[in-house]
Amino acid sequence: MAIYRVHGIPMSACTARVLLCLHEKGLAYELLPVDLAAGAHKQPPYLSLNPFGQIPALEDGEVSLFESRAINRYLAHKHKDAGTDLLRSNSLSEAALVDTWMEVEAHRFNGPISEILIQILVNPMYGMASEEQKIETEMGKLGKVLDVYEERLSKSKYLAGESYSLVDLHHIPTLVYFMTTPKANAITSRAHVIAWWNDISSRPATIQVSTNMKL
Amino acid sequence: MAIYRVHGIPMSACTARVLLCLHEKGLAYELLPVDLAAGAHKQPPYLSLNPFGQIPALEDGEVSLFESRAINRYLAHKHKDAGTDLLRSNSLSEAALVDTWMEVEAHRFNGPISEILIQILVNPMYGMASEEQKIETEMGKLGKVLDVYEERLSKSKYLAGESYSLVDLHHIPTLVYFMTTPKANAITSRAHVIAWWNDISSRPATIQVSTNMKL
Repeated sequence: MAIYRVHGIPMSACTARVLLCLHEKGLAYELLPVDLAAGAHKQPPYLSLNPFGQIPALEDGEVSLFESRAINRYLAHKHKDAGTDLLRSNSLSEAALVDTWMEVEAHRFNGPISEILIQILVNPMYGMASEEQKIETEMGKLGKVLDVYEERLSKSKYLAGESYSLVDLHHIPTLVYFMTTPKANAITSRAHVIAWWNDISSRPATIQVSTNMKL
Repeated sequence: MAIYRVHGIPMSACTARVLLCLHEKGLAYELLPVDLAAGAHKQPPYLSLNPFGQIPALEDGEVSLFESRAINRYLAHKHKDAGTDLLRSNSLSEAALVDTWMEVEAHRFNGPISEILIQILVNPMYGMASEEQKIETEMGKLGKVLDVYEERLSKSKYLAGESYSLVDLHHIPTLVYFMTTPKANAITSRAHVIAWWNDISSRPATIQVSTNMKL
């Protein structure tokens, strides 16, 4: 089997998203560090892998892809019979549920939580202040999303139904960091959300990948 | 064949995105208006269709979905043999290209162009001023995305390769409105982007759906 080539760094949430999928599927890969400090991601040859100059990118022989969620869809589709079918592709309606909630993660969950992580964890690394007002605004948005999740997870074990899927996996990297912040009670205070998080964060793939996620 | 039930309004870009897919596939549907002015989208029973209270939502018998891009993926997958295969699902690598550029539209293109449309077209409808500074900031972001598109479209006829796909379709609703603004030269000044737009905007499905898109 070919070894997947992942361009990225372990502490990047988007890189970790791809590594989680590779680990879930038991696939061999090599992680090729991109020197962000030197601006390698904004220069050739990296721009030939991702014209937007962001990590990660994936090479699979002649196939070259970017955008973590698209990469994972490719891996999950190609290896659907290895372990859990993360796209639930045997049922049109179950696959549609995965697609719907993947859009929710990408469009409603990722924006607020990423901004909160930037304010609380990233800005201080660069000597910049955290903007309290911005944190509160984004916490308000995130709370509304988590209220919907709480209701949803009271009816099904995972966001897209009764089995673990790419939807759940896509939430993990940002939540790994979020749970280290003083705002983690947004998760722990919601009974079904914290039960879901305890489940997906204790998967072997999650434990393996998150070990290397240190900001 | 069942008639699809679409909850939304013709002037909503996200509703139009779903209608475009239905027209491309030649599918029968009924459009069920949601009374946004009365706040119907924020109350039951609409919240049972979309817990986030936004349009559109789709009902297909027992299947109920929301998020326009996920709805289209469902329709394109279910009817892949009707007309163009919008997901290019016969090839793993071609499907992955569709997925990658669909993420680009959703994460890089949609944000800036939507904010520009709000500022230029929507705010005046509600007696609010357009913020010039915000327009310029978002035009800067959109221009960088369009530079990548120009390069991409110099090498392939459509964004995900040589055939029309969901990627191209997903750009249409916001571009229909954008082309009515004084900023349309961001498209017309780029040779390959305007050739692409002239192509996809002249498709019968586009003409049919955009006729009803009036702000």
